[in-house]
Amino acid sequence: MSESVVVIGGGPAGIEAARGVADLGLPSILIEQRERLGGTPIFANYAALTPYFEDAEQAMDAMIAELNARPLAEVRTNTTVTGLSGEAGAFTVELSTGESLEAGAVIVATGFDHFDPGRERQIYNYYQYPDVLTLQDLEAQLKAHEVLVPSTGKPPERICWVQCVGSRDRNIGNEWCSKVCCGIASKQAIEVREMVPGCRAYIFYIDMRMYGYWETQLYWPAQEKHHVQYIKGIITEVLERGDRLVVRGEDTTMGRPLEVPMDMVILSVGMEPSAGTKSMAGVLGIEPNRYGFIEAAKPPLDTVSTSRTGVFACGAALGPADLEDTISSAGAAAGKAVALVRRGTLQTV
Amino acid sequence: MSESVVVIGGGPAGIEAARGVADLGLPSILIEQRERLGGTPIFANYAALTPYFEDAEQAMDAMIAELNARPLAEVRTNTTVTGLSGEAGAFTVELSTGESLEAGAVIVATGFDHFDPGRERQIYNYYQYPDVLTLQDLEAQLKAHEVLVPSTGKPPERICWVQCVGSRDRNIGNEWCSKVCCGIASKQAIEVREMVPGCRAYIFYIDMRMYGYWETQLYWPAQEKHHVQYIKGIITEVLERGDRLVVRGEDTTMGRPLEVPMDMVILSVGMEPSAGTKSMAGVLGIEPNRYGFIEAAKPPLDTVSTSRTGVFACGAALGPADLEDTISSAGAAAGKAVALVRRGTLQTV
Repeated sequence: MSESVVVIGGGPAGIEAARGVADLGLPSILIEQRERLGGTPIFANYAALTPYFEDAEQAMDAMIAELNARPLAEVRTNTTVTGLSGEAGAFTVELSTGESLEAGAVIVATGFDHFDPGRERQIYNYYQYPDVLTLQDLEAQLKAHEVLVPSTGKPPERICWVQCVGSRDRNIGNEWCSKVCCGIASKQAIEVREMVPGCRAYIFYIDMRMYGYWETQLYWPAQEKHHVQYIKGIITEVLERGDRLVVRGEDTTMGRPLEVPMDMVILSVGMEPSAGTKSMAGVLGIEPNRYGFIEAAKPPLDTVSTSRTGVFACGAALGPADLEDTISSAGAAAGKAVALVRRGTLQTV
Repeated sequence: MSESVVVIGGGPAGIEAARGVADLGLPSILIEQRERLGGTPIFANYAALTPYFEDAEQAMDAMIAELNARPLAEVRTNTTVTGLSGEAGAFTVELSTGESLEAGAVIVATGFDHFDPGRERQIYNYYQYPDVLTLQDLEAQLKAHEVLVPSTGKPPERICWVQCVGSRDRNIGNEWCSKVCCGIASKQAIEVREMVPGCRAYIFYIDMRMYGYWETQLYWPAQEKHHVQYIKGIITEVLERGDRLVVRGEDTTMGRPLEVPMDMVILSVGMEPSAGTKSMAGVLGIEPNRYGFIEAAKPPLDTVSTSRTGVFACGAALGPADLEDTISSAGAAAGKAVALVRRGTLQTV
């Protein structure tokens, strides 16, 4: 029997889960493959978090500092999990370092990767045109407080976002909606309009999925205060004409073809299971879903249990998730992991 | 000092939070104003849960049975909370029964009410026409396995859902998107098409907010397998013509007026703070948001803390939430409440 909980993945979900376990009185060991904690918000250069615009680096630093302040929480960076044996209450977790750890439970928090817009189809010419960027490319510019057209080095006069790149798309196998891209594009459009007031901003979308409070936190301010133009339309091509880009498609509200010049085109790339998430199914002996994310075994009334007793998952390892989803499911996973270990230790229930 | 956690509200969020606290080794006391647990899924007669179509009553009975199996979990029905004094770690909770309870922490799980479609405006004539129903009226029919036009007692030949009734609507002050109605309408349309195969089903929407996996769990099957027709259009009136209803509005994709006969019109009524949620702000001395839901004090990286230390909130008391959001935030709230009580007891951190 072991009282420790091993948490795999050092992004927001993993940090929150590891801190949660420690706050509930059990030792947590957080395993991160990279050299530092922070996950996608740090490594994809996020500027501000959606929807409240906190500085991403400060927010992650604060989370990491909270974790580091817990004597019960241990962090191992530059380490991956290579195997799992035993059973709930008495797992042995093998590490890439050659060590092995005893653990009562395991929490998978290996997250997502941004869709690679060059994979399979190249209709948006991401790798060909320097002024076609992804959400995270623009985040890096926003983080540097300098929004510039890459080919000219000047601020853009016209910028647009193309929604659902790598989402809601059967041709490439990504059938799901990635949930957060409508909110992130809207957040970015607000930031661009604030940094480059003369720049016109357009968002081409299929459905604006601004659920819950995002409607009033982002969607209405973007339109009313920041004059972002939302156009229901499907962009089928991005072309170069002279020294400008042209986006081409159909304006579905107006029912007519659409061809608009742009200085910068931002591809709202969706969420895919990260390499770590895809590999964890095999390493840990848990069921993935058909897309390669971790399958929640008993949704909707249990959101974090997997097919293997004692192994839990949280955050975007389970599928598209916003930060609030991620933090809530990480807290829930910490609670379920600690409860399971306590049950084993106390020999009750 | 008290080790107990008082949970207010006996729906999915409260049951999950109370069970979570008990599983983490502390006593939980669940306070429910009605005569039994189950919350909105039971009292609004839900048939099947979104998106996996489990029987709602069976699912809630299973949750309640799990809670009742915990010796550390106590349930008080027919009881409301009338006051809170003291501070985190040593609260005194006053009850409508005249008793008071000592509690280390409090979790608010008082949920939502369905929007009343007769409030303020009557453009859909809900109280005038018997064949205009709400989502929960239709749930009751689905639960009875009998979908019938109220005025004729016959199965409908044409049924439609009008989305965003009481949501995304500044005129009535409900500015938020209620998040779940697109999914619930789609679930219901699938169920109606299965029970009444000859019935045509239409969903009139502004944006289909089928985020994450709902896209493939509900939206595509509804269209492809069950031939539900989705029409982007805003319905401005429901009228009677002869013995049928007529919905009138604008088909925004086709850019033309729309007038369609229907046997039944289902109003996809959104979420509002429940009476209990609205009153808890005053009773517990916590900040509501401008809509009357409980304000999360530190989102997005803390989803369940309120403005008063030691008082947490979860589920739809915080705002529009689907069942998975609710269960995750309930688990997170249980964890944070137990951690806080433990910290007080152990005098550490």
